[in-house]
Amino acid sequence: MSLLPSCQTLLLESRDGVLFITLNRPECRNAMSLEMVAELRTVLAAVNERRSIRALVLQGAGGHFCAGGDLKDMAGARARGSAAYRELNRAFGALLEEAQKIPQVLVCVLQGAVLGGGFGLACVSDIAIAEHSAQFGMPETSLGLLPAQIAPFVVRRIGLTQARRLALTAARFDGEEARQLGLVHFVENDATALQERLEQQLAQVLRCAPGANAQTKALLLASVDQPLGPLLDQAADDFAQAVSGEEGTEGTLAFVQKRKPSWAG
Amino acid sequence: MSLLPSCQTLLLESRDGVLFITLNRPECRNAMSLEMVAELRTVLAAVNERRSIRALVLQGAGGHFCAGGDLKDMAGARARGSAAYRELNRAFGALLEEAQKIPQVLVCVLQGAVLGGGFGLACVSDIAIAEHSAQFGMPETSLGLLPAQIAPFVVRRIGLTQARRLALTAARFDGEEARQLGLVHFVENDATALQERLEQQLAQVLRCAPGANAQTKALLLASVDQPLGPLLDQAADDFAQAVSGEEGTEGTLAFVQKRKPSWAG
Amino acid sequence: MSLLPSCQTLLLESRDGVLFITLNRPECRNAMSLEMVAELRTVLAAVNERRSIRALVLQGAGGHFCAGGDLKDMAGARARGSAAYRELNRAFGALLEEAQKIPQVLVCVLQGAVLGGGFGLACVSDIAIAEHSAQFGMPETSLGLLPAQIAPFVVRRIGLTQARRLALTAARFDGEEARQLGLVHFVENDATALQERLEQQLAQVLRCAPGANAQTKALLLASVDQPLGPLLDQAADDFAQAVSGEEGTEGTLAFVQKRKPSWAG
Repeated sequence: MSLLPSCQTLLLESRDGVLFITLNRPECRNAMSLEMVAELRTVLAAVNERRSIRALVLQGAGGHFCAGGDLKDMAGARARGSAAYRELNRAFGALLEEAQKIPQVLVCVLQGAVLGGGFGLACVSDIAIAEHSAQFGMPETSLGLLPAQIAPFVVRRIGLTQARRLALTAARFDGEEARQLGLVHFVENDATALQERLEQQLAQVLRCAPGANAQTKALLLASVDQPLGPLLDQAADDFAQAVSGEEGTEGTLAFVQKRKPSWAG
Repeated sequence: MSLLPSCQTLLLESRDGVLFITLNRPECRNAMSLEMVAELRTVLAAVNERRSIRALVLQGAGGHFCAGGDLKDMAGARARGSAAYRELNRAFGALLEEAQKIPQVLVCVLQGAVLGGGFGLACVSDIAIAEHSAQFGMPETSLGLLPAQIAPFVVRRIGLTQARRLALTAARFDGEEARQLGLVHFVENDATALQERLEQQLAQVLRCAPGANAQTKALLLASVDQPLGPLLDQAADDFAQAVSGEEGTEGTLAFVQKRKPSWAG
Repeated sequence: MSLLPSCQTLLLESRDGVLFITLNRPECRNAMSLEMVAELRTVLAAVNERRSIRALVLQGAGGHFCAGGDLKDMAGARARGSAAYRELNRAFGALLEEAQKIPQVLVCVLQGAVLGGGFGLACVSDIAIAEHSAQFGMPETSLGLLPAQIAPFVVRRIGLTQARRLALTAARFDGEEARQLGLVHFVENDATALQERLEQQLAQVLRCAPGANAQTKALLLASVDQPLGPLLDQAADDFAQAVSGEEGTEGTLAFVQKRKPSWAG
């Protein structure tokens, strides 16, 4: 991992094609500081083009995922005025945009506090696994604030109908309700089961070709807001390239030969 | 409430920041007459700018929410021809648009018949609470008609996949199925439990700052069909204003002082 | 059915306003060959304007719905190069677009393999009925390929949140999970119950006026990506025409006379 930046707020560990990113400010339930936002963005930029890293696991140290924005940064911005608030807020939205589009499969492991900004990060994952006891919510409006950068991602994640109730009541809810709302894909009763589910899902991801997954993810994201006709034309081009390319050739050959393809090692 | 219009088809009662609007034509299961549409629109326009009214509760008298359009108005329009039908129909759509965008939190209490236009109204609520025995449905196509103004709101509410089945079969379903479909947020077994859930949800809403809620609601609605980048820029501006404003200042101070903010009185 | 094309890969049977289309290549689990795609498109074009055919039932022979693309056609395209792949792929997307927009109510009966292209067809149905033991999935990425033409339809069907997990893990799942994901409307335990559900749903469809259903379906599809205001204006025009038209006149009269309308036989 020598090409990854050295970080103050994150632990990074890479093994078997997976980069584990641990939010590491347990003394404040991994509250999202400006420094943490910047470091996460730097890490995402560094891995963006590396197909050898096929999945990212985002998790929190100390039993919490992320309790939201950091109040100390808010106090610092207060001294500098309105432009500083805007910048601080928008930087977090940029992180969400970049995490949403990262070509790797992004897995979030959700324990303890998953609030505000932490809630937003959960909303851009490809696979979300929660512990039953996790606490989800958008407390902003109860503080006189707005879930400004995260609101659009929440609507894309769970739809307007649930997003409006949750945001306008600042409701808290647990992992099981998060699953029922379609916010997370799996809910587990304890940390051991959470770990087993993570490993199972990573194994599934690694059966899929890295380039095909990256292109498929881009296509799925484009499907949310792009017109259907041109999208299907582009998809047909991508398909033709994939099937003639290295992965498609190896994958279909392995299928005929009833063996695992090279990437499923 | 002296500034509210006097109404023939609605009962209005205001208490503790909440305006209760009761559809009051129980002799015809609160069928939506032209007069009722006009009165609802007038009430919504009158409360739109009043931040002292923080939530609206829409309910029906006599055990039913609303059984749909009024057949007498339809007969009246028949005499006047096609333009009259168009006007009658579009006016109801305008009501739905205005109710969808109202800055206050809109709560619908759904009992008995929730059909046609009543179904449409349920689809623009921020919080929907149904009695288990309520009867939901879009009967229009079984009458040779279209669920014309409500269809787009149904798709936004529960998605295309469920909307198409319900509209093309004119299916009837109860409150529990409405919850499973994501149409309502809560289902209760009797009128007492319904009332308790309403009070619980209103208490939750009143914990949230009125201005922050109004801006958050506008942001959530914009998230459905506006491009992400400009939306996040605007949201950052709104956030900066909110945090420096009266509510943000009071809210964050109250948080530090471990007391309730002024609006949560 | 003399005006329907004669088909090599499909069985066609028409009765009581319903056209049953059976994918009939059981020796390869009804894999979607180029010939089958072409024949399905021809059949859809032939029935498009016929209001006497009010519903289409799409099902598979031999206990499977459709196992995806045909590998022999893939091999054939390989010989002809990249343009042939693109054409083959895009033709299937055109079929999905045409099936999505067909004015009739499209019912899919899903047993056995519902994979790849078969999965895509399920995603454009108005009513989807699955057997519990059916096997759903998008295996493409595990073969180094993309679910290219089907991805946009999957996102529209079940939303981005579930689509991304399923596509990026090539997960297999059964009929009950398909129901929980909102992919299908009904799941049944065996072939008999499946048949009963199909007949119940067809009876429901036939209670609805054919023209009203066709217009409502077009309106629902437009609601996904068209701006609300113009859509409601158009819907009001359509409503005015429908209510003054033959179906609307008959339907409202039958309602007043407490009898079945003519189309409900």
